[in-house]
Amino acid sequence: MKLHVKATAALKRRLGAKVDVSPDGRWAASFDSSKISFLPEAVITPQVEKDIGAVLELANVHRVPVTVRGRGTTLTGAAAPVQGGWVIDMRRLKRVRIDADAGMAHVDAGATNAAVQNAAAAKGWFYPPDPSSKEYCTIGGNIACNAGGMHGGKYGVTRDFVIALRGFLPTGEYVEWGTATKKFSAGFNLRDLWIGSEGMLGIVTGAVLKLIPQPATRWTLLTAFKDEVAALKAARVLFRARVQPAICEFLDRESVVCAERATGKSVFPGQAGRAVILLEFAGGVSEIAELKIPVLAWAQAEALASKEARDRDEAEELWAVRRKCSGAMFELGDAKLNEDIVVPMRNYEKFARFLTRLKRTSKLHVPTFGHLADGNLHVNIMYHRGNPSETRAAEKAVQLLMVTVVSLGGAISGEHGIGLAKTPFLRIQHRPAQVKAMQAVKQALDPRGILNPGKMFDVVRIWKYQKLQVKLPWDHK
Amino acid sequence: MKLHVKATAALKRRLGAKVDVSPDGRWAASFDSSKISFLPEAVITPQVEKDIGAVLELANVHRVPVTVRGRGTTLTGAAAPVQGGWVIDMRRLKRVRIDADAGMAHVDAGATNAAVQNAAAAKGWFYPPDPSSKEYCTIGGNIACNAGGMHGGKYGVTRDFVIALRGFLPTGEYVEWGTATKKFSAGFNLRDLWIGSEGMLGIVTGAVLKLIPQPATRWTLLTAFKDEVAALKAARVLFRARVQPAICEFLDRESVVCAERATGKSVFPGQAGRAVILLEFAGGVSEIAELKIPVLAWAQAEALASKEARDRDEAEELWAVRRKCSGAMFELGDAKLNEDIVVPMRNYEKFARFLTRLKRTSKLHVPTFGHLADGNLHVNIMYHRGNPSETRAAEKAVQLLMVTVVSLGGAISGEHGIGLAKTPFLRIQHRPAQVKAMQAVKQALDPRGILNPGKMFDVVRIWKYQKLQVKLPWDHK
Repeated sequence: MKLHVKATAALKRRLGAKVDVSPDGRWAASFDSSKISFLPEAVITPQVEKDIGAVLELANVHRVPVTVRGRGTTLTGAAAPVQGGWVIDMRRLKRVRIDADAGMAHVDAGATNAAVQNAAAAKGWFYPPDPSSKEYCTIGGNIACNAGGMHGGKYGVTRDFVIALRGFLPTGEYVEWGTATKKFSAGFNLRDLWIGSEGMLGIVTGAVLKLIPQPATRWTLLTAFKDEVAALKAARVLFRARVQPAICEFLDRESVVCAERATGKSVFPGQAGRAVILLEFAGGVSEIAELKIPVLAWAQAEALASKEARDRDEAEELWAVRRKCSGAMFELGDAKLNEDIVVPMRNYEKFARFLTRLKRTSKLHVPTFGHLADGNLHVNIMYHRGNPSETRAAEKAVQLLMVTVVSLGGAISGEHGIGLAKTPFLRIQHRPAQVKAMQAVKQALDPRGILNPGKMFDVVRIWKYQKLQVKLPWDHK
Repeated sequence: MKLHVKATAALKRRLGAKVDVSPDGRWAASFDSSKISFLPEAVITPQVEKDIGAVLELANVHRVPVTVRGRGTTLTGAAAPVQGGWVIDMRRLKRVRIDADAGMAHVDAGATNAAVQNAAAAKGWFYPPDPSSKEYCTIGGNIACNAGGMHGGKYGVTRDFVIALRGFLPTGEYVEWGTATKKFSAGFNLRDLWIGSEGMLGIVTGAVLKLIPQPATRWTLLTAFKDEVAALKAARVLFRARVQPAICEFLDRESVVCAERATGKSVFPGQAGRAVILLEFAGGVSEIAELKIPVLAWAQAEALASKEARDRDEAEELWAVRRKCSGAMFELGDAKLNEDIVVPMRNYEKFARFLTRLKRTSKLHVPTFGHLADGNLHVNIMYHRGNPSETRAAEKAVQLLMVTVVSLGGAISGEHGIGLAKTPFLRIQHRPAQVKAMQAVKQALDPRGILNPGKMFDVVRIWKYQKLQVKLPWDHK
């Protein structure tokens, strides 16, 4: 790893106490939730946005790699400073202001997703994107990977809620993409090019986000199915009837069993070990009342059993189980390849059959859950790191998964992004001409290659790296 | 204008009868709704998408300008082949297929907006973007300028409904941006970079569009106000109450008077010559019933008078007036600078006062109407081409309008795009670093500069050009 001693000295002269070169500070910024560590030379914690411009001016002149860090909740290694250099820690830039008339949130990139949701809710507005790490993850990070969550199918993902961005080019020049208006058609759309670009084309310091009216009421329903094929087929039937649940979460039998072992409780009493779909509907009071009729008829026809939450406490109880399943999986292995693939609805049953075969032929546990309203499934390939044959099987399984997903018309990542973790699969998704075009854009906007270098295009097999044994605040218990 | 005789001969050898070099064919493709004519050397009408790849391969080698044409409804000159070369006419590529389970439309770029709306509606789905030229304009054109329409505020614009794109790079290489899934976070987002790029970065041949469930019912309400400030203030009060009309159309007093003169009828009987807001609410039957209570209370408190449509026929009668106002304006002048600016809601009243001043100081008629749910207002600066002082006043007024809009935090174009018409104002909206970044992207993706050259960045004052005296099918009567 190349060191930039002169540049770092100049940085300290310019920004003083905002620059941390202590071993502890550098270590804390050396990894994200992928837990693969690469030490940076310095960590900058800007107090005002223009500090970032100053950092970039120096970095661009001296060709120092710059990696931006929200809170480091990403699982892909996107926030790990793989080529060292400088890390910009956004935690102090976290203002949130709600424009209650226009239904917009004006936020700094370091504000957490939950801070935005809560501020919006306090004024009767709703910000739907909700990654499971929402209490910790930042809006800047959400924008960097185009984060989704459970509400994606009905409401959309981060991209669908970003009205305008501001930030810096790698030269340190300040830019604004879009205005705080719902229509904007003036010039090339670099706003959306930045969204999902994982800090490689520019640095986002703030955003204007679209809000929608807070739904008046919610209704939760749990349904159980014989197996995965039955559940995924039933979901298709529901969507075909033009019913749009706000949330439609699927848990396969392995995920259910994990959650049941971890909690000592049945996910669906009387239906232990069954595949389940947990639904939430949101809307006006009479709208939801009208909706219950076709939805309950659907459940009766398609499910083995169903169970309504009669109030928010009962609903919360149902959701608590869903939240357990991810952490509970570490009973099945000490290592997880956590893939957030997407499958188009027309191929749901085909994909369920593929998963059954994958579990059988790999001899691995592959508990799978996810968001059926948009086909974004979290496929968790579990193995034991110390077991070479399991490790090989996992590596083979993930490759087969990605090839299958793309051949079914789907995506290798729905909401996590590429970072380091998905780099071996980028060219399964994209034709050579597409990758070449992306690289041309990178070269055009960051000609010196200082922004988050080593990500997206260089192939890195992160499962071959040593992982830190650390517990992060958002790690599942 | 440079001629490409050898290249055009090679093109004819390769594509035969699909290439038209007749004077009539070239003339018909020489202009769009801006009516400024630049003769191309050849017009290609592809039968299959790969014809476009073949055209581009040749064009890129021989550096021939290529301009794509939907139906030429754009008002900006974006489809006029200003540097000659070849025009690709997309009219034969117009398949539409609805995936009724997934709620998606698979469309060719040459399909009209109305064809998509109708096909979706036939299966219980709704495609909200609705430019006023929807019977003629194509989806490809809608994507090129990120077209909007009346539904933008509640539902979003074209960009918000594009799930995936396919098409060609200027090299003739085929690419696909995104998959037919609602989540996709794998690689840089060139899909959205293409949207709104006016055919300058790649050629769109097809798209997957998101659909939403068709609302069960609609309710139309017409309201009248003392003046523009009162109307725009009232709109803000409505939105502050978290009420989201599907459509919220404003007509200032000059627009109302135009429509009344043209039709010989009152827009709002008993309220002749008043500023009006025409509202449509869409949703479930009980949802709309619930909504009427706060909306009627709002109308009582804020408006001089209001009038409900009791059925679809009455609603249609109210909408007929709105459709008249644009064409009726040519009573006020034989030339129109038609600007589709956007103003943020917080500055609605300030903007209304500015417009009053502009009319007074310019001594011109500036009838204004538009979409209050997203602040996208059509400001029509009317003048007589033969009158030099009016012409100068119009030129001065449009400059002042653009500077004011940007200083109020708005946009110089909400749904038309830049083309040629808005090029004098691009740098009012965008900082030099922003324009430089856009130009770098253009250079990266189209290094030989063959795609729709001469647009966006070169300053062209189209009001100085001679206009064709032709009547287009979508011209107002």
